[in-house]
Parts: sequence; structure tokens; C-alpha cells
Amino acid sequence: MRTILVTGFEPFGGEATNPSWDAVQQLDGWQPDDETLVHARQLPCVFEQSLAVLTAELTALDPVLVLAIGQAGGRTCFSLEKVAINYNDARIADNQGQQPLATATADDGPAAYFSSLPLKHLVQQLRQHGIPAEVSFSAGTFVCNHVFYGLMHALKAKPQVRAGFIHIPYSPAQAARLQSASMSTELVVAALKICIEISLLQQPDILLATGQLD
Amino acid sequence: MRTILVTGFEPFGGEATNPSWDAVQQLDGWQPDDETLVHARQLPCVFEQSLAVLTAELTALDPVLVLAIGQAGGRTCFSLEKVAINYNDARIADNQGQQPLATATADDGPAAYFSSLPLKHLVQQLRQHGIPAEVSFSAGTFVCNHVFYGLMHALKAKPQVRAGFIHIPYSPAQAARLQSASMSTELVVAALKICIEISLLQQPDILLATGQLD
Amino acid sequence: MRTILVTGFEPFGGEATNPSWDAVQQLDGWQPDDETLVHARQLPCVFEQSLAVLTAELTALDPVLVLAIGQAGGRTCFSLEKVAINYNDARIADNQGQQPLATATADDGPAAYFSSLPLKHLVQQLRQHGIPAEVSFSAGTFVCNHVFYGLMHALKAKPQVRAGFIHIPYSPAQAARLQSASMSTELVVAALKICIEISLLQQPDILLATGQLD
Amino acid sequence: MRTILVTGFEPFGGEATNPSWDAVQQLDGWQPDDETLVHARQLPCVFEQSLAVLTAELTALDPVLVLAIGQAGGRTCFSLEKVAINYNDARIADNQGQQPLATATADDGPAAYFSSLPLKHLVQQLRQHGIPAEVSFSAGTFVCNHVFYGLMHALKAKPQVRAGFIHIPYSPAQAARLQSASMSTELVVAALKICIEISLLQQPDILLATGQLD
Repeated sequence: MRTILVTGFEPFGGEATNPSWDAVQQLDGWQPDDETLVHARQLPCVFEQSLAVLTAELTALDPVLVLAIGQAGGRTCFSLEKVAINYNDARIADNQGQQPLATATADDGPAAYFSSLPLKHLVQQLRQHGIPAEVSFSAGTFVCNHVFYGLMHALKAKPQVRAGFIHIPYSPAQAARLQSASMSTELVVAALKICIEISLLQQPDILLATGQLD
Repeated sequence: MRTILVTGFEPFGGEATNPSWDAVQQLDGWQPDDETLVHARQLPCVFEQSLAVLTAELTALDPVLVLAIGQAGGRTCFSLEKVAINYNDARIADNQGQQPLATATADDGPAAYFSSLPLKHLVQQLRQHGIPAEVSFSAGTFVCNHVFYGLMHALKAKPQVRAGFIHIPYSPAQAARLQSASMSTELVVAALKICIEISLLQQPDILLATGQLD
Repeated sequence: MRTILVTGFEPFGGEATNPSWDAVQQLDGWQPDDETLVHARQLPCVFEQSLAVLTAELTALDPVLVLAIGQAGGRTCFSLEKVAINYNDARIADNQGQQPLATATADDGPAAYFSSLPLKHLVQQLRQHGIPAEVSFSAGTFVCNHVFYGLMHALKAKPQVRAGFIHIPYSPAQAARLQSASMSTELVVAALKICIEISLLQQPDILLATGQLD
Repeated sequence: MRTILVTGFEPFGGEATNPSWDAVQQLDGWQPDDETLVHARQLPCVFEQSLAVLTAELTALDPVLVLAIGQAGGRTCFSLEKVAINYNDARIADNQGQQPLATATADDGPAAYFSSLPLKHLVQQLRQHGIPAEVSFSAGTFVCNHVFYGLMHALKAKPQVRAGFIHIPYSPAQAARLQSASMSTELVVAALKICIEISLLQQPDILLATGQLD
């Protein structure tokens, strides 16, 4: 049985829920095919602790695919992040009061990693399924980017494992308080299933040869 | 049997569907209570013809409540319009190629009418139901505002009939092509039912006395 | 000697300056021609008092043209307002702690007045002079709209006096603290001079006949 | 005599001017101190050719500081870019009709480089001088990012040379046609002079020791 790890975050910034976990927890136990099982895990919204939990799960589950999901209030679309940067600069404190300013996630790491998901192909497929989607070139400098960078850094010796980070809009219930764009949890769950199925079924070498893989 | 008229528009601007009609048609035949029946009608996206169809329906149905719904691409929330202005200025041509510039809808009419729906109360209730909603102070200068102004002008001698205009975001399928904010049809239909129920149940004079009616 | 009245506001919302007054005060004493003199006045950012000061100046100066200017943080362009509405709904308190909610400015007044400035013609001319400008269809529901409505209401029996309201972006110095769009005071002053000259020189009846006046 | 290289772009996307060159050319020959001379150069808005011109200038001038400037229509602030990515994906064709999709700038290069300018310190100083400024974490995937990445890649063996990329808003004259945010050329020139002076005067090792350098 192959394993897929999908993570969402606990609430932060005074919110009672986090739409990333609302969606991700619905995928726990889902089998995109008979040989593959999805494990959903919640990450704390805390700089160091989030990566400690994530890397422990990578070791325990040895997944073939990892999707880390986070909330990006104000975004209008399902946003597939391209670039994880080795830089933390927190505008607000995390859930344990930490607020790193201008720090590196890995002192010996490169400036950035790219997602290893087939981003442009995923966006194309999501749009054909009627789901607003885009490639984003900044995951910010808060815990989301920190987890994204730490994930790619942890997997740098395992190029066969595909991994990436996805930002989602507020849920409608959050947006009702905050007057912002939103996306229903149903649509986010549908989008995540499409991302999982395409990332599993497509062979990276075939996509590369046909120019469909960016 | 009391009658409610709810209108949506045909597609325009090169779109294949119009989310206002996608939602409104689901309300046709709905009974918020045993004594009340909703009639859904589609309006052409044409300056003069839209009002001709609307006023014919007002005469035929003699409704107690009228909600006219239109698409406002780019909006993030369910937008209850406050102000209908006596001014048309079309940035693009309507579905019959007409593009009025700086014209009046009613030469003898006032500069504007206000919606007679309990807007602030509706927004409060919608938000409590987890639906992103707002009062908007401009319905633009295209066919939507034209219909809104014509509706209120036609009803000016019937203050007992409540009427107003609501703008809704793109549907997710539209936003998937246009990279914009969106709202699911399910959420729009739920929001419209709340607007209908509250507008019917609440007595305007009571709301006015308690300051809940703006 | 003909008189022109141009007003700006005192600072509000915690700001140390108000770009409307920064610009307007530079016009005090300016003569667009030998027969015409501009008087600049500052209005308090207080609901009732702002109109008391304004109407006293209208009586004292008997102007042929009135331009009221206000700050609209977040706007990117010089915004000529089309519609003044008979509705106050303050999101924050004014400078004397008043926060009217869902009130009328004139109990016996119409829902709205239109600006009597040649808005579309002004926007066209401003753009030709390289100044970002637009017609706006909502002046909000705070003191700016209150002053705009009160101004047009006070002049309703004097159609020969042209009057209107213009919203301007933050100054660069404000935007430096607030990360927003801005416009330099020099550009705002240049834009106001163009508005004054065109509004004076053009004859409304000629503009109406040629369709240039909206 | 120390040399500083500041570059701007030729117009693109149908525009008649490019505000980056409008500003940069005013710095040609400027001496921030007696020992330092600024050279302004225009880059073609063409993927490969822009870097060919830039690297030729780096060789010819051997500058101690390089600021590459580009237009970012829609931005509201002077934007200091943090991240140059090894990825080109052109939404429109460049000035020679090239439109690379999902290509690398340097096949053997890392995913990204960070600017070596003291970005947070510059933003702080610019804001204190009343200039709207921000750190940006995406320079896009068009020629601007291509030049930024190529610049940092060319200087990777010369850590003593400070270099970076800055995006500026439309000029007011452009924004007058496009209804967008703008910044006057005067303000951009003032901001660039501040960036040059601070980048020269500050000693990177001192800034690092005091935590002022990000």
C-alpha cells in the first residue's frame, strides 16, 4: 500500500477554524486507487513545531506524495505554490507567540526550492473541472512558507517523492465575518482529489518529454 | 396566493451562462410558506427590452416582493444594492448592440431610488448564516442598474411592494476561466431564500420602529 | 469679481494631515482669470458641523462654482463623484465622536443628487493632461458623502451654480505608512486647476447640445 | 572612481514609454559622493538580449553596486524584490516576439537567488522619507525576473558587489490611460537616490551584526 500525506493547519490569527484542516480531514482514509491510502494530519501553526511534526510524519509514513495545505485569506483561487524560500519574516506572532524576523529556515540550505508537483498541468486540469486555480509565486514568509521550505528541504535527497504546498481562500463562513473572497470546502476537497489523482497517475518523465511538466 | 417575482439575466459579455439565472431558476415554484409562490423569470441583457419584460411581469403577477439578480464579475460577496441611479453609461454593448452613453432611464424621474429591502438586517442575517454579504452603494451604469432603476420607478406608487437588486459573484466555473472570486450556486440559492423569508416575515413598520430597517 | 469656493477636510481617522486640505489650501487666492478668485476653506470632519460651515460659506461667498474635496484612502485615481445619497452610515466615529447609522441628511430630501460638474468631459481632459482620473458612482456613507449631499441640497434652487465632490488618493507620505496607492499633492493641485478652468469656461448649454455634458 | 550601474527597460506591451527608463536616465552621471559615479543603461525588453547587454555592462563597468529597475503595472508602491527565480513563463511575447514557457534561465543554476541589497533597512528609510515602499517576494516570470536572476547569477562569485531588482508603479501619464495606481518620476528618482546612498554607506557586516540586514 502506497501512502499519501496531506496536511492542514490548526486555526490561527484569532480564527475559530482553519479551512485547510476542514478540507484535509475529509481526505483521511480516502483511497484514490486500491493500492494507495491518504493520511491526513494537522500541523500546529508554530514555526519550529510545525516542521517537527511534519518531518516525524514523513519518517513514519514514507509517503510517495505530500500535499501541504494552508489558508491564505484574501486569495480568490486555489493557489498552487511554486517557490519555497529560505526566509521567515512574521508579520504576526504564531500560535506560541514566536515571531521570527528575517531568519533562515535552514542555515545551510539554498535560497529556494521549487514545488515538484506538475503545477501548470494541475491548473489546466482544475480549470477544466470548473475550479478557479492558479500558480502562485509567493507563499509568503509566515508558517506556510516555512513548512513548504522545510518539506522540500527534508525531501531533497528523495526526488522520486512529489511534494508541494497549496494555499486556499477563506471558507464562506470566515469570509462572512471578514468580507473577503471565499471557496466552499466541497470545492477545495474536489480540487485536492484532482491534484492527488493527477500527481499519482502522471509519470513525471512522460510529462517532461511532452513539455507538460513545468 | 401571494406572488414573489425573482429575475435573473441571460448570459452577456461572451459568457455561456449567467450565474444569476443559474440560481434564480432553482427558485421557480418554491413556496416559502403555504400562501406564497415564487415565480422565476429570465430578463434579456438588453437596455430597453429588459425593462419591457420586467414591467409586463409586474403587471401579470402583481407580486408582493421583487428581487432582481445580476452578475457582477469580480465581486467577492453577495451584494445587496442600495442605490438605483437614473443614468446609463455602457462600457460595452448589450446583447442587441446598444450602448447608451450618459442617458437617463426616465426623463422625468428622480436622480435615484433606494432599495426597499431591509438591507442591513439582511446582511446581518446572511452573515450569521455563514454567507459573505455586503451592502453595495453602486450597481454600476449598465443593464443591471437600468433594471433596478426601472423596477423602483415602476413601483413608486406601490410602497407596500418591497423590491431591490442583488449582485452576485461569478460562479466557480466562470472564475476558473477568468481567475476571479466566485460563489457557488448553492450558496447563492441559500442566500436568496434567506432574503425572501426575512423580507416576507418582517413587518417594515416593526423594523422601522426598532431601528433595524435602514 | 466672481467667487469660487473650494473646500478640503481637516485630518481624521488618526492621520496627522489630510491631503485634501494640503492641496486645497494651495488654491486660496488663485485667479483662473482676472474676474475670478478662488477661496479655500477647511471643513471639520464632523457630520453636522461640516455642513454648517459649508452653508455659511455659501451664503458669505455666493460662489459660481463649488468643489468639495475629500480623502479616499485606497483609491488610485482622482475620482469625480457622480452621486450624493441621502444616507449616512458611519463605519467609524467622526472627529467629535458621532457615528450616525442609517440616517438621512435631509428628511425631506430626495434619495440622491447628481454632481452638476461636466464629469465625463473633465475626466477626458484630465487624462489628456496625464492625470489618472475616473468618474466614481459612490462617495461612501461618511462625512464626504454627507457634505456632497448637503452641498447639492443647499444649491437645489440655484441650478446656475456648478458644484460637485472629488475624492483624492492618499498622499505619498500617508501611503508610506499605510502601504497604499498615492498621488502627489502637485498632481492633485494641477488636476483641481484643470477642473476649475474647464468648469468655468465651458457653457453648460453648449456642452448639453453637443452631448459632451453628462 | 567607483562605478554604480543602474538599468531601466525600453517600453513594452504597447506602451510608448517605460517609467523605469524615465527615472533611471535622470541618474546618469550623478555622483552620490566624489568617488562614485552612476552609469545609467537601457536594457531591451527581450529575454536573452537583455541579459547579454547587462552582462556586457557588468564586464565593462565593474560596478560596486547594481540596481536593475522595471515597471510593474498595477503596483502601488516602490517594490524592492527579494527573490529572483530560475524560471521564465511569459504571459505575453517580449519585444522580439519570444514567449518562453516554463524554461530555466540557467540550466545549472539554483532555483533562486536573494537580493543582496539591505531590503528591510531600505524600506524603513524610504518610508521615513515619505515614499511608499515595500519588500516584494515575487518579481514575476517575465523579462524583469529573468534579468534579476541573470544579474545575481552573473555576480555569484562576487559577493562584495551588492545587487538587486526594484519594481516601480506606472507613471501618472500611463495610469491616466490605464486607470491604475501610479508614482511620479520625481518620487522614483528620489527613492533610487536613497537606495544608492544607503547601500553604499552602510557596511554589510555592520548591518548583519546589528540585525538590520535581512
